[in-house]
Amino acid sequence: MSRIWNFSAGPATLPEAVLQQAQAELLDWHGVGAGIMEMSHRGKYFTEVIQTAEADLRELLAIPQNYKVLFLQGGATLQFSAVPMNLLNGRSADYVATGAWSKKAHQEAGRIGKARLAGSTEAQGQPADGFIRLPRQDELNLDPQAAYLHVCTNETIHGVEFLDEAHLPQTPANIPVVADMSSHILSRPMEVSRYGIIYAGAQKNVGPSGLTLVIVREDLLGHAGANVPRLLDYKVQVENDSMLNTPTTFSIYLAGLVFKWLKAQGGLARIAEINQEKAALLYAAIDNSQGFYQNPVASECRSLMNIPFRLPSVEQEAEFVRASEAAGFMGLKGHKSVGGIRASLYNAMPLAGVAALVKFMREFAAKG
Amino acid sequence: MSRIWNFSAGPATLPEAVLQQAQAELLDWHGVGAGIMEMSHRGKYFTEVIQTAEADLRELLAIPQNYKVLFLQGGATLQFSAVPMNLLNGRSADYVATGAWSKKAHQEAGRIGKARLAGSTEAQGQPADGFIRLPRQDELNLDPQAAYLHVCTNETIHGVEFLDEAHLPQTPANIPVVADMSSHILSRPMEVSRYGIIYAGAQKNVGPSGLTLVIVREDLLGHAGANVPRLLDYKVQVENDSMLNTPTTFSIYLAGLVFKWLKAQGGLARIAEINQEKAALLYAAIDNSQGFYQNPVASECRSLMNIPFRLPSVEQEAEFVRASEAAGFMGLKGHKSVGGIRASLYNAMPLAGVAALVKFMREFAAKG
Repeated sequence: MSRIWNFSAGPATLPEAVLQQAQAELLDWHGVGAGIMEMSHRGKYFTEVIQTAEADLRELLAIPQNYKVLFLQGGATLQFSAVPMNLLNGRSADYVATGAWSKKAHQEAGRIGKARLAGSTEAQGQPADGFIRLPRQDELNLDPQAAYLHVCTNETIHGVEFLDEAHLPQTPANIPVVADMSSHILSRPMEVSRYGIIYAGAQKNVGPSGLTLVIVREDLLGHAGANVPRLLDYKVQVENDSMLNTPTTFSIYLAGLVFKWLKAQGGLARIAEINQEKAALLYAAIDNSQGFYQNPVASECRSLMNIPFRLPSVEQEAEFVRASEAAGFMGLKGHKSVGGIRASLYNAMPLAGVAALVKFMREFAAKG
Repeated sequence: MSRIWNFSAGPATLPEAVLQQAQAELLDWHGVGAGIMEMSHRGKYFTEVIQTAEADLRELLAIPQNYKVLFLQGGATLQFSAVPMNLLNGRSADYVATGAWSKKAHQEAGRIGKARLAGSTEAQGQPADGFIRLPRQDELNLDPQAAYLHVCTNETIHGVEFLDEAHLPQTPANIPVVADMSSHILSRPMEVSRYGIIYAGAQKNVGPSGLTLVIVREDLLGHAGANVPRLLDYKVQVENDSMLNTPTTFSIYLAGLVFKWLKAQGGLARIAEINQEKAALLYAAIDNSQGFYQNPVASECRSLMNIPFRLPSVEQEAEFVRASEAAGFMGLKGHKSVGGIRASLYNAMPLAGVAALVKFMREFAAKG
C-alpha cells in the first residue's frame, strides 16, 4: 500500500498513525471482542471513549470550565439552524459575511428568525469568488441589541481566515460571538473565552464526516423556544451528555484518537508552528511564480488551512488537476462554485506533502 | 482475536466479513492511496460508493421507482421532528403508540405541530413496560383528515413488532403511513408501497450509528414550511442527492458493504427465514423454562429482532448479566427504562450465537 498526498478540503486526510490504530482495533477494541462501533453508546467502554475525548479536547483548546462540549451530528449546516433556534428567541442576530459559508449561515438563519447582514466583504460586481479580505471595524453596522454576532473564522472555499482573535469584530461584552470553525479548529491555540459558541464539522481537522463539535458557554443554554426539536436544543443535549439519542460513536472514537495524536505532536502551539511553516511554503511558491499562480487574498487574512489559487487559464487549471493526479496528488481541484485550484493543509498533512506539492507546482509552471 | 457474541440493541454487532473488508481498505480504498473516509464526498470514488449503496438497497427492498432514497444524519430522533416539519403544513397527524419509541415520536411531533394519539396499547396502571400488543383496528380513533399516520414497526425496547404489512392499521388511501423501522429494516422483505415514508437509524441492521435512511414517496416531497431548515427538507435533500452538506461518508460506505453482504446471503427472503429460526429458538427457550424466563408480548407481534425477558427477581437478572459477560456474551442487559434482559437478534447475529445463548440460559436456569 502506498498513501498519496491528499489535499482534499474535506472529508480530508487523517493522520496515518490514527488510521492504523483504528484499523487494528476495528473488530476488537482493547481485547473486548467487538469493535467500538458495535458497542452500546451507554456501556462502560464507549463512556470511557467519549469522556476521554472530551477531556483531551478540553486540554488541547484550554476550554474554560463554564463551557460545555457537545458531540453532535448534522454538520455545520445543521448548526446554521440550531444556533438561531437556541439563541434568537424573538430577537435578531448579526452576521458578517467573509466567504461562501458565512453567507450561507446568514441565509439559513433567516429561515428561522431575523438575521441581519452586519457586514460583508463580497466585492461588488465580482463573481462569487469575490471574498478576499476581512471587514474593517468601521465597515460594520452592528446592532447593539443583537442576540449574537456570527462569523466563520476560516472560509474553506475562499481561503479567508481570522488568524487570531484580535482580528475578530469588536462587539459589546453582552453580545456573544458565535463562530463556525469547521475548517480550522485545532489548527492553533484558540482563545475560547472570546466566543459564546464555537461549532465545527469534524471532517477537516477532527475526524470523519458526520460528527459536529459544539462548544457552548453555559449562560447561552436554556433559551431555545418551545417548538425547537429537543435534539437541537443545546441545553437538552448538555443534560444528556450528547446522548439524547445514539451519537455517531465511531466518529467520536476516531476524533478521540486524533486528539491523542495532536497531544503527542506537542499540542496546538506546536501544531500552529508547523501549520505556519506549511502555509508559508505554499504561499511563497504562489507569490514567487511570476504570476503563474495567483492567490488574491489580503496577506493579513490568508488562510493557513485552505489555499485557493488560479492559473493563467481554466485550461491550464484542468491540466494542472489532471497532471497532479497522475503525479500522485489528490483533491487539488477548487470548489465547483469558484473553480481554480485549492490545496487544504490541515493538521494531518505533513510538511513533506506540501514540499512535494510545491516541487510539482514549480515543474508544472516551468512547462506551462 | 476472538469475537464475542454481541446481543447489543444498537449500536450492534456487524457482519464479520464486512468489518474485515472495511479493515483491509481503511487506509487505502481500492488501491487509490487514501481511505474512503478521507475522500471528497463529491469525488468520483465516493459517488460510486453512494450510488452503489442506493442501487443495492433498492434491489434488496424492491423499492418502487416513485420512492426516493436519502442517506441522512441525526438518527430516527431527528426524523421525529423532520417528518412533521415536512408533512404537517398546518394539519394534524395521527400517532399509534405500541412502545417507548412511537410514544416519543408522538411527543416530539407535538413540539412541531398538532399530533393526535390515535391509539395506544400502553396498559393502564402498568409500569412503563406495559406495551405488550398491537392495537385492534376497532380501538383506533383515526382522523380522516390526518396528514399521516405514524407507527414504529418494531419497538426496540418493548419487543413489539408489526410482523408483516397485514398487521398495519387500515387507513384511507389518502393518508400515508409513516414508519420508524430503525430496529427491523432489512430483516425481512417489506412492502414499501404500503408506506409513505420509511425511516431508520442505521445502528441496528444497516451499519454504524450516525447514518439515517429515509425512503420517501415522491408526492410527499415539497410540503415543508418556509421556516423548515433546508437540511431537514426532504425535497431539498432529494435535489441534492443527500449532499446538501457533507454526508456521513464512512457510515454510508459501511452500509453499502452490509447491503452487498445481505445480497450474498440470498437477499431478504432468505434473511427472514434465518431470523425466524433464530427468534423461534430463543422464544422456545423462554417459553419452555417453566416460567423462569418470561416474555409477556402477545404471540402475533413478538419481535424477531429484540427479545426482552424477565427472570424471577431483579437480583437474578443482575446475576444473569454478570454471568453472561463472564461467559463471553455482551449487551444482554435490558433497557434502563424497563430493566430485565434483552437479546437483540439482528441480521448480523448468526444462529450459532443464539444457540450459544440458549445453552447458557438453560444452564443458568438449572443453577437458579
